Amino acid sequence: MDERAALALIDGTLPAAGDDAAVVDDLVVTTDMLHETTDFPAGTTRYTAGWRAVAASLSDVAAMGAEATCAVAVYAAPAFDPDDLEAFLDGAREVCASVDAEYVGGDLDDHEEFTVATTAIGRTEDPVMRAGASPGEAVCVTGTLGRTAAAVRLFPEDPERANELFRFEPRVAAGRALAAHASSMMDSSDGVARSLHQLAEASGCGFAVEGGALPVHPAVESVAEDDADDRELAVHYGEDFELVFTTADPAAARAAAPTPVTVLGEVTDDGVTIDGESLPDRGYTH
Amino acid sequence: MDERAALALIDGTLPAAGDDAAVVDDLVVTTDMLHETTDFPAGTTRYTAGWRAVAASLSDVAAMGAEATCAVAVYAAPAFDPDDLEAFLDGAREVCASVDAEYVGGDLDDHEEFTVATTAIGRTEDPVMRAGASPGEAVCVTGTLGRTAAAVRLFPEDPERANELFRFEPRVAAGRALAAHASSMMDSSDGVARSLHQLAEASGCGFAVEGGALPVHPAVESVAEDDADDRELAVHYGEDFELVFTTADPAAARAAAPTPVTVLGEVTDDGVTIDGESLPDRGYTH
Repeated sequence: MDERAALALIDGTLPAAGDDAAVVDDLVVTTDMLHETTDFPAGTTRYTAGWRAVAASLSDVAAMGAEATCAVAVYAAPAFDPDDLEAFLDGAREVCASVDAEYVGGDLDDHEEFTVATTAIGRTEDPVMRAGASPGEAVCVTGTLGRTAAAVRLFPEDPERANELFRFEPRVAAGRALAAHASSMMDSSDGVARSLHQLAEASGCGFAVEGGALPVHPAVESVAEDDADDRELAVHYGEDFELVFTTADPAAARAAAPTPVTVLGEVTDDGVTIDGESLPDRGYTH
Repeated sequence: MDERAALALIDGTLPAAGDDAAVVDDLVVTTDMLHETTDFPAGTTRYTAGWRAVAASLSDVAAMGAEATCAVAVYAAPAFDPDDLEAFLDGAREVCASVDAEYVGGDLDDHEEFTVATTAIGRTEDPVMRAGASPGEAVCVTGTLGRTAAAVRLFPEDPERANELFRFEPRVAAGRALAAHASSMMDSSDGVARSLHQLAEASGCGFAVEGGALPVHPAVESVAEDDADDRELAVHYGEDFELVFTTADPAAARAAAPTPVTVLGEVTDDGVTIDGESLPDRGYTH
């Protein structure tokens, strides 16, 4: 059983699971675990690790259209170097402050591999779920795609730039602003292709996307080997943590959001296509 | 820097940390990570692991005198065996149900060692902190001590009984009932000796405890080698997850709590003693 099959099992048995965050009363709650070998390439600073680990959970709060309330983290490492730990806490605190949330600490744990478990909590009376898209609506994305893919390739030669790209801004303010306009929403943590398939499955619809509309991050061009690679990095690599959403009124959504919004295409009855060809349901599997 | 020194660094830099759970508005939030090699002895079932991991976080909610709202967990393992995962989820769900909380899922992660990160969230308008004890008050504990120590010794010969002992009841209902009576409170996750020292430090007081008053779990006698070992298991081993609290009215506290409450001794000006001798600040270091 791979992770997706196991997640399907969890979804089937836990009514509150299966969206970007669980909804309990007026709270949304989301938790993640990140490991050095899979999530923090060589050259990732502890400041960036703290920022990014907490930001990944805040992104799930954003995807529910919720305010971000607070975040906690477990910091597990083979040794507790004070500089490392302080840098991690600085990153965690600063990304929380950037979205008006509080970083309220957590726990420390001895572990042979540097591992971080983060949880973020948000509040909303009216969460935006993955289900809710209707044919004829527009499908949109915030910001740009491919930022993380570019960072991973840049780490060996330009770690400073790579760290900067790794410290993405969680789209909490955009999520709040879009909540009034979006019929469905999720984040693009597994890549925009996987997000489209997951929204399609949850909403019982399809998508027709135009490849030329994809807002590719400028750093992707500098690292991509050719056009096919460029497309792969922007569409399938994932971990961009942008918001993918559907709306009946993209102009209003764009006007409301504090972040650039790009219309990728439209909601259809079924099938996920890019320029008329089937878009594979393939992305980053965490 | 060991874990306690590192925790002191976190406490010093994060105002919301340093108690059993962080307090944010009317929420209390707590997070933990548990590993197979350090926290789940051979013979621990995945059902027990799910129960116990989530219960450990719910115990921190209880220690704040809060209602338990919900819990999430990250389940990290080298493979996702469906039976293991379902058993874990059953344990997690059932312990939540036992304290009127919702288990709302979480995340899965590939990891070479079975590792669980849990977060629990509670609500209270009036959290009970570690600071607040005053000389002359009584210091009390719920339930019994040494249950986990006994379980660890019983795993090789009687895993069924050991699993049963490992699945402790989080004292959420007791914590709620005691909130109106307790001047300070925490859980005994590092052992009652460490808890007394931590309450003493937070409250700026001392404790004089009577050894004969300690409510030792009946299973301890069956595994202890002698009286000194019995005392060690009950006082220092820890992971009992009982509530240690101070109160000006122990009779009212006992009447209110749905769990047995034992008076251990009294709050003094300084020093932590047992039968007049200094009680070492030593316990289970996670």
